[in-house]
Amino acid sequence: MKEDKELYEFFSKSEKRFQPGLSIDSVIFGFSDNQLKVLLNKLKRMELWALAGGFVLKNEHLDDAATRILRERTGLSNIFLNQFYVFGEPNRSDKKFHIKRMQQVGWPVQKDYWLLQRFITIGYYALVNFSNVEAKRDYMSDVCDWYDIHDLPPMIIDHGNILNKALEVLRTQLKYQPIGYNLLPQKFTMPELQKLYETILDAKLDRRNFQRKMLGYGILKKLEKRREGGAHKAPYLYSFDLKKYHKALKEGLHGAW
Amino acid sequence: MKEDKELYEFFSKSEKRFQPGLSIDSVIFGFSDNQLKVLLNKLKRMELWALAGGFVLKNEHLDDAATRILRERTGLSNIFLNQFYVFGEPNRSDKKFHIKRMQQVGWPVQKDYWLLQRFITIGYYALVNFSNVEAKRDYMSDVCDWYDIHDLPPMIIDHGNILNKALEVLRTQLKYQPIGYNLLPQKFTMPELQKLYETILDAKLDRRNFQRKMLGYGILKKLEKRREGGAHKAPYLYSFDLKKYHKALKEGLHGAW
Repeated sequence: MKEDKELYEFFSKSEKRFQPGLSIDSVIFGFSDNQLKVLLNKLKRMELWALAGGFVLKNEHLDDAATRILRERTGLSNIFLNQFYVFGEPNRSDKKFHIKRMQQVGWPVQKDYWLLQRFITIGYYALVNFSNVEAKRDYMSDVCDWYDIHDLPPMIIDHGNILNKALEVLRTQLKYQPIGYNLLPQKFTMPELQKLYETILDAKLDRRNFQRKMLGYGILKKLEKRREGGAHKAPYLYSFDLKKYHKALKEGLHGAW
Repeated sequence: MKEDKELYEFFSKSEKRFQPGLSIDSVIFGFSDNQLKVLLNKLKRMELWALAGGFVLKNEHLDDAATRILRERTGLSNIFLNQFYVFGEPNRSDKKFHIKRMQQVGWPVQKDYWLLQRFITIGYYALVNFSNVEAKRDYMSDVCDWYDIHDLPPMIIDHGNILNKALEVLRTQLKYQPIGYNLLPQKFTMPELQKLYETILDAKLDRRNFQRKMLGYGILKKLEKRREGGAHKAPYLYSFDLKKYHKALKEGLHGAW
């Protein structure tokens, strides 16, 4: 099969091309319409899913490698990735998994082969609007698709753990960095913004407290027009004050000292 | 010389012992008496200083490696280290530096030798009270000592850059995590707490604004007794409410949603 040949070639060429013992895995969170999803690849011939992961070329900057890997594995580009943590448990790699794939394509298994050593992986994450992006699978995968974070399929090695850590970092980040631009429509209501936070935090928030906090950050502009067409009193529309939003991205939501 | 022999042995044994292409560098910030310092090792025979750095054993957890390296290079233990960033520019290593040291001790320089490959390094940092800790140099160093962050000596490769990034992370962290326990005396005044923040931020803060923010976090207990003995009106004494302090460490200073 074509993919067997491609995998065999990957095994032959990779040892020379890539930095030893080092991989990158990216957790791409997608928000749209009050749903939080994550982008996963289903591996061919296995009922196992994986983050968008790969290796670092010997002369490649880590951030460039993360961008390239994401593009190669999912077809996505122009996504800003944040490095968030290094995963380095000594036994985190699954050698049996690699050996199985080597045997499937007839690659001679040797104990000192590059891929059978210990790998540490650098975790990156991003949060995008998943209705704007269409992911494409690569030759190693059957499917590349968005999965609800409450209903995740079985994942290889520590990828579930990497995903959880990324989610934890994302939730912490909500407390000191603005979020929402590119995830919400240009004009939105306070309940819509609250829903974004509730979806990421997976928790119900107090309406008044949320509104007070949000307005206190000073990153919102209240618009003249209210949303029309509802049965109830029309809610106010807001948009982000982009200058203040970007200032808060840099200095933190609670302002400079 | 003894250290030549030790360095030669290091070159002979390390390739087998350590994970390829991977190092750890720790930035140990020390605060005491309104001074912010950093712990550096001066390398023998060179007018160059380095962070407490080293390599990861093939079966060692990254965090354990960071702790071990810090102990070996500086004599310090019981310091909680935070992983904060991975530095992976392709040309960050200084091969000439290693070659020079190899030549000094008569180790045969070979191009494919482990130490002459590309290394990425994982940055860790900690903030301690430097008056409580006494650092000891290892056999590779002349001196291990605290240096004022405004008056740093010349540093090897990208260690100045790693230090700056750690400082940036520390300063950001001030905005959402409590700090001060173990750095200040058990009872302290608001001006003393403010001085800690000003020293880390390297900036003068507004007294009222600082006090309002600090009291707003709800992590301080105002004590019955005031500080005695000054010429002016005695300032109030505070201590940390440790239960709330630890809650804020976990949930962030601005509380749970």
